Parts: sequence; structure tokens; C-alpha cells
Amino acid sequence: MKILRINTRERTYKYEDMGEYAGLGGRALTSRIVRKEVPADAHALSADNKLIFAPGLLSGTMAANSGRISVGAKSPLTGSIKESNSGGMLSQKLAKLGLAAVVLEDKPEKDAPFTAIRITKDGVEFSDAPDREGKDNYEYQKVLDEAFGGKATVALIGTAGEQCLQASTIQFTDPFGNPARSAGRGGMGAVMGSKRVRCIAVDNSGAKGIEYADKDAFKAANKRWTEILKTHPVTGQGLAGFGTAILVNIINEAGALPTKNFRSGQYEHAADVSGEKMSELIEKRGGKVHEGCHPGCVMQCSQRYVDENGEYVTSGFEYETLWGFGPNGLVHDIDLIAEMDRVCDEKGIDTIEMANAVTMAMEGGLIEWGDGPAAKALLEKVGTDDPLGRIIGNGTGSTAAAFGVDRVPTVKNQALPAYDPRAVKGVGVTYATNPMGGDHTAGYAVCQNVLKVGGDVDGMKDDGNVELSKNLQVATASIDSTGMCLFVAFAVLDTPDAMQVLCDLLNARYGGNITPDDALALGVQTLKDEHSFNADAGFTKHDDQLPRWFKEALPPHNVTWDYSEEDLQAAKTF
Amino acid sequence: MKILRINTRERTYKYEDMGEYAGLGGRALTSRIVRKEVPADAHALSADNKLIFAPGLLSGTMAANSGRISVGAKSPLTGSIKESNSGGMLSQKLAKLGLAAVVLEDKPEKDAPFTAIRITKDGVEFSDAPDREGKDNYEYQKVLDEAFGGKATVALIGTAGEQCLQASTIQFTDPFGNPARSAGRGGMGAVMGSKRVRCIAVDNSGAKGIEYADKDAFKAANKRWTEILKTHPVTGQGLAGFGTAILVNIINEAGALPTKNFRSGQYEHAADVSGEKMSELIEKRGGKVHEGCHPGCVMQCSQRYVDENGEYVTSGFEYETLWGFGPNGLVHDIDLIAEMDRVCDEKGIDTIEMANAVTMAMEGGLIEWGDGPAAKALLEKVGTDDPLGRIIGNGTGSTAAAFGVDRVPTVKNQALPAYDPRAVKGVGVTYATNPMGGDHTAGYAVCQNVLKVGGDVDGMKDDGNVELSKNLQVATASIDSTGMCLFVAFAVLDTPDAMQVLCDLLNARYGGNITPDDALALGVQTLKDEHSFNADAGFTKHDDQLPRWFKEALPPHNVTWDYSEEDLQAAKTF
Repeated sequence: MKILRINTRERTYKYEDMGEYAGLGGRALTSRIVRKEVPADAHALSADNKLIFAPGLLSGTMAANSGRISVGAKSPLTGSIKESNSGGMLSQKLAKLGLAAVVLEDKPEKDAPFTAIRITKDGVEFSDAPDREGKDNYEYQKVLDEAFGGKATVALIGTAGEQCLQASTIQFTDPFGNPARSAGRGGMGAVMGSKRVRCIAVDNSGAKGIEYADKDAFKAANKRWTEILKTHPVTGQGLAGFGTAILVNIINEAGALPTKNFRSGQYEHAADVSGEKMSELIEKRGGKVHEGCHPGCVMQCSQRYVDENGEYVTSGFEYETLWGFGPNGLVHDIDLIAEMDRVCDEKGIDTIEMANAVTMAMEGGLIEWGDGPAAKALLEKVGTDDPLGRIIGNGTGSTAAAFGVDRVPTVKNQALPAYDPRAVKGVGVTYATNPMGGDHTAGYAVCQNVLKVGGDVDGMKDDGNVELSKNLQVATASIDSTGMCLFVAFAVLDTPDAMQVLCDLLNARYGGNITPDDALALGVQTLKDEHSFNADAGFTKHDDQLPRWFKEALPPHNVTWDYSEEDLQAAKTF
Repeated sequence: MKILRINTRERTYKYEDMGEYAGLGGRALTSRIVRKEVPADAHALSADNKLIFAPGLLSGTMAANSGRISVGAKSPLTGSIKESNSGGMLSQKLAKLGLAAVVLEDKPEKDAPFTAIRITKDGVEFSDAPDREGKDNYEYQKVLDEAFGGKATVALIGTAGEQCLQASTIQFTDPFGNPARSAGRGGMGAVMGSKRVRCIAVDNSGAKGIEYADKDAFKAANKRWTEILKTHPVTGQGLAGFGTAILVNIINEAGALPTKNFRSGQYEHAADVSGEKMSELIEKRGGKVHEGCHPGCVMQCSQRYVDENGEYVTSGFEYETLWGFGPNGLVHDIDLIAEMDRVCDEKGIDTIEMANAVTMAMEGGLIEWGDGPAAKALLEKVGTDDPLGRIIGNGTGSTAAAFGVDRVPTVKNQALPAYDPRAVKGVGVTYATNPMGGDHTAGYAVCQNVLKVGGDVDGMKDDGNVELSKNLQVATASIDSTGMCLFVAFAVLDTPDAMQVLCDLLNARYGGNITPDDALALGVQTLKDEHSFNADAGFTKHDDQLPRWFKEALPPHNVTWDYSEEDLQAAKTF
């Protein structure tokens, strides 16, 4: 495997051996490169920052659900290190080209033309990106299809990324040719935009593909791996039935569904925006209830959401998006929420950050609570010349500051997702202490706190949740390095031999004899890289806490957030 | 002396004895109250923050130049503690009412009507503030004159403060009835706006005024004090001749005048915006070259700037404002810059923060370099419904973020003033290490680095400047607690008995026997209060540094910024 380094100012490139990065992939690799090569005090939009795309260690193989990609950089939103994770087609193709990472370095003058980068087995081609002419991502993907021939597999920024807005995403082509998958969080699109790279197209035609140390062993391990995923009730059936949207009713029932900017844990109209409702509509209208975000996925938690006329609206329409544009702003029109999800993909903006930004606009009196059409209109301003679009597109903190709001649901300036931390305290600990800012995926304690998968820890009580979050953060950092979808954790946590099977896959791919302990040690090392970068960037324990107003009691269970800063540091102590 | 506490939600008040705050005044008092009473993790716009107005220890007395006021709170701009200092009439009147501080606490609902507070010898009156109807500060001052009878002495926020924008000021009525003096830095106006207080009028009619422990001794000390100020070349003649604008040519000559967003230390059109030019125009047009910002000022560094028709435009038109709207954005139309200064007073926004925000708009391509009318038009949007006004009004960091700029001249998110830190390194150390963010007044090493007053330390070399800045920061914290204008430092530094005379004034006012060492110890304690608040708010040594791009060489002397974080910490070590 090689590292491909691209100088975006000179439009030059070189391949490097793995060297000190040998054995790393995915998040472990992006975070190590950022730690080693990006000065912690660099401005995230400066030439000193680097943007790294790294397939996981198992990406490109036949292993089920191994096609995720890690995108790393210093985040312009949080100022911390960032790994943002996405599905789509790019990861597997990069891996099949023998690339462990693509590193975008330096930056051109600010008015330089946008670059299109094309990576093939023969090297890298640079060109001025095809004219955008106000096209949003879906339409622009078609332009790229034409430019690169056939169906192009790309990483693409939208107009938000071109404006270097802090909530901007990098979108990835999904298996159906749409730019519907996102490295959503932390403004990775802005870093790409600052380097004046509009898109990276990857074509692995003619590449020799993945080599295995022991292909038969790999096949055998993958057979068991697939079985583990297919037989677990969540990964085998639950996610395919309703996608992540199945959580709306579950989290609402638990009293943990943040409603009206985290004022209540239950929403009277939750059923209107539930996974059950979504599936019912999709089936009635002829959409598709389940499909995968990358080839080789056996969970199929994505979907093809269609409108009343059966026309495609969006896919990858997640629980967090439904929650954010729905209950948290008192909106319960699921079709409108689907349209907002589409607008976010079109502009290249993070749905969680945007959903909270919209509630800040409601808090600040710019639009009314529950006014979905007004919320959608705000999103549509992002990436245009309207300065309001720049306020919204810079995220929740930016919108709060513009409208004088002091009830701001962020940690390290990143907006909180769809689980009230007072009622799902394990996730609250993750929000507060993980290296990325307000994020649920970094230690998804919803499993133990609510779903009772992989353990049972009361989400309403303090006891056990710091330790739980810490352990999940380690396991997650490990999984994020393999290219595996995070949802494998549901099955892994409940299946005694699963971690060994994952190691069997790694050993059969690369040779060697790593153990589950080694895999967890890699997770710990990754977190250490991340926390030490953050410390050098000026973060302290005081930044590892929720906003003060979470001390307020949350109805209906009247739970509060009471962890001291000292308590929480245990989640970062390895 | 008493502390007056006002609950802005209940519209109630109470007087308290000084208690643990006895012996403190001005900045020493505001910072101690913030340290003791405001949680470091409070949102600056929340009910947990407090806004404190504190006359200095000598304010209200007959002592020359003792009429400054300290305004303290947690800053919404920087997130740090803040003391912002202003002239005007309020300080002396509060002191004559026997008030050491007025503390605004709590906050009403966000749509509550704005309050007008009136403080007299009989207590506090609350009313809904007179309708604003789009009036800016000058016109609104007249409404308040009418409402409160005769010439009202007020602290007033503009429309920027009402929108809780982070660069908003609190304006104070000057001796000529105009709201032309500012507590400019750190967004104190936003804190007042968040508490829904539009203005505080103070009327000391019938109050018994200042009591002296030994009035004759006070008179004798003040005679010497006045003599010291009047005989020093800077405080006695220099400032009265050209105001602070005299610095334009001096700093330009030194190669330290930041030009085009700190790309050069010299500006070819500096003479067009110089103090000499200003004085020439004022004299020709029949304005006033010198006047004071408060009664009892013997320096008279302010002026009455008039237009071609002799009509008043602005006063308190400082060097930093000339620089910021002039050379740093490549504008050299002094009349236009005067108009921009006026717009800032009208809206209630900080000229230094706004000047740098305007250059961010130039960097980001929103307006052209050197386009003064476009810059002025941006300022005029602040406080209106135009969202661009909210971007600009939230300051330099906000504007940079909105337009994707990575060359951002801020420390702790507060914009840098008019001295390039590479060429005036003592000021650079102050920018980096003082508790308030990018600020020159906290340790004004221009004296020793350039003017050679009170010592001679080369501003182009590292040696001696950390120690210099530290000593100046201590002396400044001490002076800021007396209510004395900072410019007394020019004379104090050059006059052996000056510190003793200041102590004589304090002792004659309050009794006691404090020494110059005691006064400096108060300065140290004030800085410790401030730094410890900031530490609890999450600031570390990594925040005590300039942006990385100051490592670039500055023409014409090709000086760079090379202090390590460790080196700089010595300026905070007492």
C-alpha cells in the first residue's frame, strides 16, 4: 500500500511508501498523519492543514461492510482534530488502487480555478474542474459523469465547501450514482474548498486490486463474519426494516428525543416522522425500503425515499436528520424533512449541524418554531450570495451568535445529535469527552443505555456511563480504522467470537497475527493521537463538558446532567 | 461607598456594603466581581453573566484625569474576562452618588421590552426605554435628553448591542452631550443588550458628593499631580496638539504601521491620514483641535472633527481608528474615515474590531481593497435587518469565517490594533499574553519601543520585551483601578515621584497609607484574578500566542515573530 500525496498549489503528486505509517488505516491513519504533520495551531483553512482520505484496513476486500472511508484534517468548525466517516464507492476503489491514503497538501491562491483531480492506476490527472454554473451536487455529479466517462466515482464538495463554510461536507457517490453519502461532520468540505479542489474522481480500471496474505483464510473468516452480521437481530433485520429511523419511536418512548432545542425528551408527533411511517410511505409510493451505502453491505440500512409521485427525493435519510429537522424544531412533515435532507446533500452541508442551526434561527426569532418551509428556505440560501447562507452554513454556533442565542447545544462548537444527554448519559459522556466535539458515533452508548445490546447500563443514572463511553470510544476508534461500518458494533458486542473474526480478516489480508487486544490497543493509540493534538491546539478539561443549561431537568423523567469535569476526564484516561 | 445591584429580570435593586470588595475600584473591582460571581463556563449572553460599571478609586474627585470608568463582564467576543475602559461623564457622577459599582444581574425573557434605568440619589427608577424607531445613538441621545430632562448623562447601547453582536460597545455621554465615548472592546454592549437594558441614566443632583479623609492633603497632592501631567512633553503638549493621531507618521516612520492586513509596516499615503493632516483640516474648517473626554482632563487629546462645511462629524477620533479604516485597508480619505468613526459610534460598535472586519471582507473578496465607500456601507448594515450586518457586527473572526479567510489578525478572537507586533514586539507580547485578547492598552510598550518614554527597549528585537510587557501590564492594571486615564503613564514613567503622588491622592481620599508597592501589588492581584478566570474558562498557553502567519517577515525591516509559547508565559508569571 502507498500514500499518495497531492500538492494542490503546484498540481503535482508523488507516491510514498507507508514508512512510519505502516500498519495503519482509516481513522488510525488520518489521525496519525494530522498529529504528525499538521501544526496544532494551524488555521484549518491555511496551507498548513492537510486533508486525508483513507480507506480502512479492510476496505476493498470482499469482507462484508468494509467499504467506509475516513476523512481527516484539523476541523475549521471545532479547531480540534477530526475524522469524518462516510460510505459510498470511493473507499473500495482507492484500496483497489493500492492506496492507503490520499493526502491533499498546501493550497493555491484564493481565486485560483477549482481543480478536478482524477486518480487512476496510471497516476493523477489535474484539470480545471468543469464549470459549475450554480449547479448543486446531484446535477453536478452528472456533469462529472460526462467529464470522466460513464458513472464517475467521486468525492465532491458543494457550494458550501466552495465558500469554505464550517458545516460543509464532502459528498461521495453512492452505488446508484448519486452524491448522497456524506463525510458530514466538522467542515471537511471547507478544508477541501480552501485547497480549491472541487472533486476527486477515482477510477480503478485495470488495477490489480487487493492482495491477500492468505485468500482462503480470508474467505473462511468472511463467511463467519457475514453470518455474525446476518444473524444478529439489529444488523440482520432491524436496520434493513426501517433504517436508523427505527429509533424515532424507540428514543421518544425512552424520553430521550430532544424536542424544541432539548427542552423535552418526548414529542407528541413523533409517530409522524418515525421509521415505521417512512417505510409505510416508501412502500406505498414504490421507493425502496432498504439498500446499502457501499457494495458488500449486508445490513442495507439506507433507502430510496420517493415523493407522492414516486420520484426519488433522497437516500441515507437517517434518524438524526429526521430528529433534527423534525422534533427539535417542532416540525412533523416527513416529506418536508426528506426535502431538507436532499437540500443538505445538494449544498454539501451536515444535516446535524444544519438542523441545530435552524433551531437557533427559531430561538433567535428569525423564523417561527415549527415552520418547516421557512427552515427549508434557510437551507437553500447556503452556498448562494445571500449572507444569511454564510451564517447558517457556518453552523449552530455561528447562527446562535448572529441572533444572540445563549441556549446553544454544542460541544467544542459542534452541534449535538439526536439523543438527549441527560437521558442517555453514556452518549452524553461521549459528546463531552470524545476528541471530535459533539458527536454520537464516537461512542454510541445508545446500545447499552436504550437498546440493551452489548450490555445494560441505565442511561438515566450516572453510574457506569463514563466507563461505558470510554470503552465504546476505544472500540469505535478501532472499528473506524478497519473500514467497517460502525453498525457492525451491534453484532460484535453481542457475539463472543466477533472480535477474533475481525482479527482473522486482518491477518489473512496482511499476514501477521494481531489479536483483539492489539486491535483495541490501536484504538487507544488513535485516541491518544487525537487528544494530544487537541491539547496542543489549546483544549482542556474545561472544553470536555456540556453547556451549563443541561443542568435543567428534562421532562418527562426530569433527569439532569451532573457530571463534574473531573468525573468526565476518566473517559479520556487510558 | 456602596455597590448597587440591579436585577434586570425583576427590575429591582439593592445597595450593598463593599464587604469583601472593600478597597477595590475600577478594573480591580470589575475583575474581582466577575472572578467571584460569574461561572467561568457561563455563556456570556446568559443570565449567569454580570455586567459591572465601576468608577475608579479616584473618580469623582478633583484629581486631574481621574474620570475613567471600567466596564467588566465575561466577554461574548473572546470568552475571556473583560475590562473595557471609557471616558465620558458617567464615572464621576456614579462616584459622587457614593457608588463603587453598578452590577447588572440576571436577564429577562428575550422579547421583553428594553429597559431604561435611571439612578439618582434617591434610588433607581425603571421604565420601558423610549421608543427607538430606528434611531442611531446620536439621535437617540436627544430622545433621552428629553425623557430625563436637560442633558442626560447615560451609558447607552446602539442597535448592535440590542442585537447582542459581539463587537458592540457601550457608549457614554461626553462633556458636550454626545454619545461619543466608548467602552469599545469585547462586546460589552452585547452583554447589556442580552439583559434588555438600553440605557442607564445617572443624575447626581443633590448628592453629597465625594468625601475626603484629608481634603487639604488631597489638594496639595493634586497640585503636584497636575504639574506632572502638564509639564511632560507628551501629556502636556503632544496629545493636545494632534491627539493620538500624532502616531500615524511616527509609527509609519518606524515601519510598524500595519498596512493591507499586516502585510507591510509602511503605507505610502500615511501623511494623508496623519494627526498633522487632521489638525490642519480641523483648524481650517473651524473645528476644535483639542478637548477632553471628561471634566478635569488636562491632556485634551480628543477633538471636534468637522466636515468641509464646519459641521460636527465625530470626536474621540483615535489613531487606532485612523489606522484601521485607513492604511490597513488601503484607504486614505480622512473625511471618509471620520465618517466611519461616526458610524461606529452611531451603531455602537468597536472601531478596531470593525476596521479589521472590513479588511476581512477585502481579503475574502466581498469588497475591493481601498474601497472606502464600500467599507462604510458595510458598517452601516450593522444593527439593521441585513444579515451581513450581523456577520460584520460579530467582529473580525466572524467576518473571516463567513468569507473563508485564513489570515485573521486576532488573539483570543479579538482583533489586533494598530501596531505591528513584529516591529513593536513589546506590544506583540501584550497582544499575546494579556487577559483580554488582542489589545494594546493592557501594556502599551509603544512608549519604550518607539517613543522612548520611560525607557528604551528595541521593538525589533526579542530581548527585554517580555519583561517590559509584563511590567507594563502590572502598572496598567493598577492605573485602570484608579480611574486615571491610561495616558498618565507617559508622565508617570518619566517622573520619579509620580507613583508616590498617586498614592498620596488615594491616601488623602480614603485614609490609609498605601505605597507604590501596594499599588503595584493590586495590579498583580487584578491580573491574577483575570488569568485565573480565563484558565477556568479553558484558556491555556496555546491561546497566548499570535497567529502563525506573523512568522512571515514584515517589510521594510523584515522582522518576524519568533517567541515560543514558553517564552511568552514569563509575561504572566508573577
